[in-house]
Amino acid sequence: MTRIIATYLVHATPAEIEARARAIAIEQSVEMPLEAIADDFILRGIVGEVQSIADRGGGVFAVRIGLAASTIGADAGQLFNMAFGNTSLQEDVVLADLNVPPGLFPGPRVGIAGLRARTGAVGRAFTASAIKPQGLPPERLAAIAAGFAAGGIDFVKDDHGLADQHYAPFAARVPLCADAVRRAGHARYVPSVTGSLDAMRAQIGLARDCGLDCVMVAPMIAGPANVRALADEFPGMAFLAHPTLGGAARIAPELLIGKLFPLLGADAVIFPNYGGRFGYSPGTCADLAANARGLGAVPVPAGGMTLARVPEMLDFYGADAMLLIGGSLLAARERLAEATARFANAVAAHRYRK
Amino acid sequence: MTRIIATYLVHATPAEIEARARAIAIEQSVEMPLEAIADDFILRGIVGEVQSIADRGGGVFAVRIGLAASTIGADAGQLFNMAFGNTSLQEDVVLADLNVPPGLFPGPRVGIAGLRARTGAVGRAFTASAIKPQGLPPERLAAIAAGFAAGGIDFVKDDHGLADQHYAPFAARVPLCADAVRRAGHARYVPSVTGSLDAMRAQIGLARDCGLDCVMVAPMIAGPANVRALADEFPGMAFLAHPTLGGAARIAPELLIGKLFPLLGADAVIFPNYGGRFGYSPGTCADLAANARGLGAVPVPAGGMTLARVPEMLDFYGADAMLLIGGSLLAARERLAEATARFANAVAAHRYRK
Repeated sequence: MTRIIATYLVHATPAEIEARARAIAIEQSVEMPLEAIADDFILRGIVGEVQSIADRGGGVFAVRIGLAASTIGADAGQLFNMAFGNTSLQEDVVLADLNVPPGLFPGPRVGIAGLRARTGAVGRAFTASAIKPQGLPPERLAAIAAGFAAGGIDFVKDDHGLADQHYAPFAARVPLCADAVRRAGHARYVPSVTGSLDAMRAQIGLARDCGLDCVMVAPMIAGPANVRALADEFPGMAFLAHPTLGGAARIAPELLIGKLFPLLGADAVIFPNYGGRFGYSPGTCADLAANARGLGAVPVPAGGMTLARVPEMLDFYGADAMLLIGGSLLAARERLAEATARFANAVAAHRYRK
Repeated sequence: MTRIIATYLVHATPAEIEARARAIAIEQSVEMPLEAIADDFILRGIVGEVQSIADRGGGVFAVRIGLAASTIGADAGQLFNMAFGNTSLQEDVVLADLNVPPGLFPGPRVGIAGLRARTGAVGRAFTASAIKPQGLPPERLAAIAAGFAAGGIDFVKDDHGLADQHYAPFAARVPLCADAVRRAGHARYVPSVTGSLDAMRAQIGLARDCGLDCVMVAPMIAGPANVRALADEFPGMAFLAHPTLGGAARIAPELLIGKLFPLLGADAVIFPNYGGRFGYSPGTCADLAANARGLGAVPVPAGGMTLARVPEMLDFYGADAMLLIGGSLLAARERLAEATARFANAVAAHRYRK
C-alpha cells in the first residue's frame, strides 16, 4: 500500500488535536462518516491514516497523515486535491510538507545539469532577467530582450504579465524576441505561455518553431495536470515555473514551489527572495531552494533584487541557482546592456563557497 | 479605456497606506519601477490606477485599484494573474472584490433558469447529494447513485475525490451511474471531470455520449482558462463548480466562488455553508449566494449539512438555491432512498419566504 505522507500544521488545543487530526484524514480521503463505510478495503486502504501528532508549541501541532497514492494515480491535479483541496478552505491549518514516493511523478526533464549543458554556465550561478513592461509593442519588447542578451545574461524571460494581449500578441512578439536574443548574445529567451492547455500547447509549438528550448508556466493558474501534460508532451523543452497566485500563506512555499512545481516537471522555479518585497524568511528560502535542488530543479530567487545584493545571494544560494533581476536592470533604460553586463560579470566573478 | 476594479483589504498604518496602495497597483500591472517607463500609453493605459483608499478601522484599509482590461483580454487565467497573482504571495493583503465589466466573460450558459427547465424543479430549492466513498468499484457507486435517485433528489454528483482511479475508472463508472440514475428517478447525474484539459474534454464527451447534461469541475485545480474553454466548447452542458483548493483565506470567498467561478461559466457553485465544518460566516455565505444569483448561477451550500437544518437553510437561501447533503444521507446505508426521500420532500414542502 503506497502512501503519500502529508504534514499539516494545525492550530488546536491538546484536548482537540486528536479528533481534529482524524477529521483532516477523513476530509482528505473519503469525506464522509466512517460509520457509514462497511468495506474493509476502504477503511484500511483508502481512508487517510493519522501517523503522528507532534506538539510544536504555541498551540500548533504537526500532524502527519498517510494518504493513499491510489486515490491520486498519475493526475497532478488530484495530488493537490487529495493533499489540500477541502482543507484549504479551513482556517486553522496549513499544508507544510508532502513526501511523495519517487517515481509517482516524473520531475524535471532538463533540470540543473541540462540547463548547464545548454547554456555553458559552469561553476557559477545562472543569471536571468525579465522583459517589461507589458503594454509595449513587439518591436520594443524585442529591443529590451536584445539589451539583456548583449549584456551577457543567461536567460531572458517574459514578464509573467505578458500573455496574448492585442498590443503584443504572442505570435507577433515571440519570433521577434527570439530573433533579437539570438543575434545579440548567447542567452536563452523564455516566453511565458498562458491560457488554456490548448493555447499553451500551441504557444510552445510556436516557441519550438522559433528555435527556443525554454518556456515559462504558472502552475497555480495553468492547473497542475496541464503543466504535467505539457512537460510530458515536450520533453526537450525546459520549464521555468512562476509562483503567481501561489497564495503561499496556506501551502508552505518550500513545499508548493520547492517540491510540487518540480514534481510537475518544472526545471527551474522562481520564488520571492528574502529581503525583497515579499515576506519570505531566509529559512523558508533556504529550505525551498534545497527542496528544488534535491529534485534536480534550479532555484530562482527573484522579486525586487538589486545588483548590490548579488554577492550576498550567491553566498546564500551557491552556484546551483539562477539569479533573476528585472526592474533594477530595466531602470538603466538606454544603458540596459551595460547594467546587464555588470550583473553577468558579478555572477561570473564570484568566489562560490559551495 | 476599460478597467476592472479590484478591491484589496490591506493591513497597514495610515502613514504607509498610500505607498502600499501604489505598490500593489504596480505589482498587478507592470511590476517594475515607473521611473523606467517612458511611454505615456503605458503610464496612463496599462499601469494600475489607485482610485480610492478607505480606512476600515483596525489597521485595515480598502484599496480600490483600476486594472486595465486590455492586460487580461479574454484569458480567464490572466484575470486571476492580473488581479492577485504576485500579490497573493504577500501576507498583508486579501483580494476582497472585483468588478468585471459585463461582456468580458460569458458567465453561466445554462444557469438557474436552464436548470429549472431541465429538472422541472419550480418554486422550490434544488436538492443534491454526492456519491461516496471513493474506493468503491463502479457497481457499488452506481447502487448508491440509484438510491439517491429513487429518493427523488434532483442532482446526484460525484464526490470531488472521485477521478479516474484504477479501482473505478471514469469510463467504467460513469456509464453505470448514468444508467442507474436514469432508471431510478428523474435525477441528473453529475460526474466530476478531472486531469488535464485533454482529459476533461474526453470525459465530458463520454458523459455526453451517456446522455448526461451536467458535469462538475474544480476551477482552482483545473485552471481558470481551461474551465472557460470547456464552457465555451460544451454550451449545452451545465457546469457545477467545486471549491476544492480555494484556500479562500486570501481571496474573499464571496468573490472567488460567488463571482469568479460563475464568470468562468459555472452554472452552479458549491460552497461551505455556515455552521458546518468550514469557517464561513452567515454574512459571507449570504453575500456569496447573492453574487452567484446575480450572475445567474445557482448557489449550492454544502459541507456537513443535515436534514434537520433544511428548513433553516431554505429560509436563509430561498428557492434559488440547491441544497447538497452528502454524508448524513449516506449514513442511512441500506435506507439511502428513504433518507433521500425525506430530504426531497422537506425541500418540496417548505414554505419559501423569498
